[in-house]
Amino acid sequence: MITNDMRQKMDKSISIVHKAIEEGGGHTILSTGITGDDARLAKAVVDVGVKLVEPNHPALALARGYKGVTTMHDAEQVRHEIRVEQMAEATQGVRNVVGKDIYITVGIPGGFTEVVPKILTDEDFILISNCGADGLHTHKSTLYDLEALVKKAHEFGLCVDAYIGLPTDLHTFGISAQTPEEVAKVAKQMEEVGTDMIGMMTGMSYEGVKAGEIHPQLKERLCALVETVKVPTLAEGGINLTNFQAFVDTGVNILVIGTSIDKMVEKAAQDVVLSYLNYKPQA
Amino acid sequence: MITNDMRQKMDKSISIVHKAIEEGGGHTILSTGITGDDARLAKAVVDVGVKLVEPNHPALALARGYKGVTTMHDAEQVRHEIRVEQMAEATQGVRNVVGKDIYITVGIPGGFTEVVPKILTDEDFILISNCGADGLHTHKSTLYDLEALVKKAHEFGLCVDAYIGLPTDLHTFGISAQTPEEVAKVAKQMEEVGTDMIGMMTGMSYEGVKAGEIHPQLKERLCALVETVKVPTLAEGGINLTNFQAFVDTGVNILVIGTSIDKMVEKAAQDVVLSYLNYKPQA
Repeated sequence: MITNDMRQKMDKSISIVHKAIEEGGGHTILSTGITGDDARLAKAVVDVGVKLVEPNHPALALARGYKGVTTMHDAEQVRHEIRVEQMAEATQGVRNVVGKDIYITVGIPGGFTEVVPKILTDEDFILISNCGADGLHTHKSTLYDLEALVKKAHEFGLCVDAYIGLPTDLHTFGISAQTPEEVAKVAKQMEEVGTDMIGMMTGMSYEGVKAGEIHPQLKERLCALVETVKVPTLAEGGINLTNFQAFVDTGVNILVIGTSIDKMVEKAAQDVVLSYLNYKPQA
Repeated sequence: MITNDMRQKMDKSISIVHKAIEEGGGHTILSTGITGDDARLAKAVVDVGVKLVEPNHPALALARGYKGVTTMHDAEQVRHEIRVEQMAEATQGVRNVVGKDIYITVGIPGGFTEVVPKILTDEDFILISNCGADGLHTHKSTLYDLEALVKKAHEFGLCVDAYIGLPTDLHTFGISAQTPEEVAKVAKQMEEVGTDMIGMMTGMSYEGVKAGEIHPQLKERLCALVETVKVPTLAEGGINLTNFQAFVDTGVNILVIGTSIDKMVEKAAQDVVLSYLNYKPQA
């Protein structure tokens, strides 16, 4: 049951996404990682034109040094222990500084493929919907789970982005589909259950391509996704400035950028402190 | 009352500071701002040689977008609303990823010059001392307040760094001293009440100096501080790569670096997203 006011809330949210894609000539970027969790950096990237940001719980585990995790791989092992309240607080902080015209999608425990029971209550949805979030960033592995999540999210005025992965992916971050035909079929089903944006996991299982190119299998899969659905499409993982054009050429609308920002931000901090630590006075 | 085990805890902490100063040939840097609050960046700077980091509550207000603050000046107005528990959690996260051989000093509500009553309880000290902190980063404005804070901090095994300011400073971040003679007198008193590191606020009230130099008044004041006390000395505020040598030349031991890191980190994030947003394919 979607009430009309929640429909309006979601329409307003998704219109930000459509406008960003249009202004980018068919594509835009979604900024995640450190720029999604730290309000200072969220503001910095929004100030130069980013329209979509994504705070998520594995990145928050890294930001908070939760249980000492220092890699995304390790963060995936403890992400379910991050509390929905913490994600709501982080999201509210980002919303406070970026203003209302930015689309914020939020990853929370219970919204990914879980290894322990994580039951999302109505109170959790109310909390996330009231903290300034436009959408839920999800990684469910079955259509059944996704449909239930979409229904609930819509009831509370939250759009949903969800993903398709390969059965061989190291981490399960979406509904499996092997061939381009299966991708098209799954994407169609995801759209039919009301998913507001549909993405492809593009960072795992695609080894051995030349610089600037993307794997032929991945290209076929992305094209199958893009051709099948009317909702905005996303690509998440493995995107860098070298292969960016190859991704854009598939027609995918939203390029999710995380690690390549984090790496440059960390390098910038290191460069500054090294300038001081290695300071040699002029003779 | 300092018990022997708490004395040992503090001795171990301060030995990290002395070693860092020695290895730097008389000076080292203390990294604060975004590198103190975000465990990812704390790890990044520690990985290249930083030994002293400082999470503090105004920086956390900025990191969390608390009440929408986006400048340090605004953060100073709301910093007292950040909870000690939040600072303990942030500090624990930093400690988790930097390991034990890094000196962490923490700014908390009640430890600065306050505009509303902020009573630090024994439980607050226990929380901070147990979260991995070596010291309290303080900005009290009277010797009386500082002495009380030092006594309590030492009881719970926390070292204390405290500061001297000018009566004309925009924000009150230390005990006032106008002339070099007054600086020497105040510094001596601060050392006598047990302050473990004594700093000078160097970023306010010193306008109109040439690039690469520091204000003659500030130079006199820093020299007065350095010559008077045996404990490690700090300079906080307004330090950049251009005037770094002039600061080092005063003999001050610890250069507090915050804004110059934050600016470069924000610029790095902006540069990366601009590379994607302005991407033009090769013809």
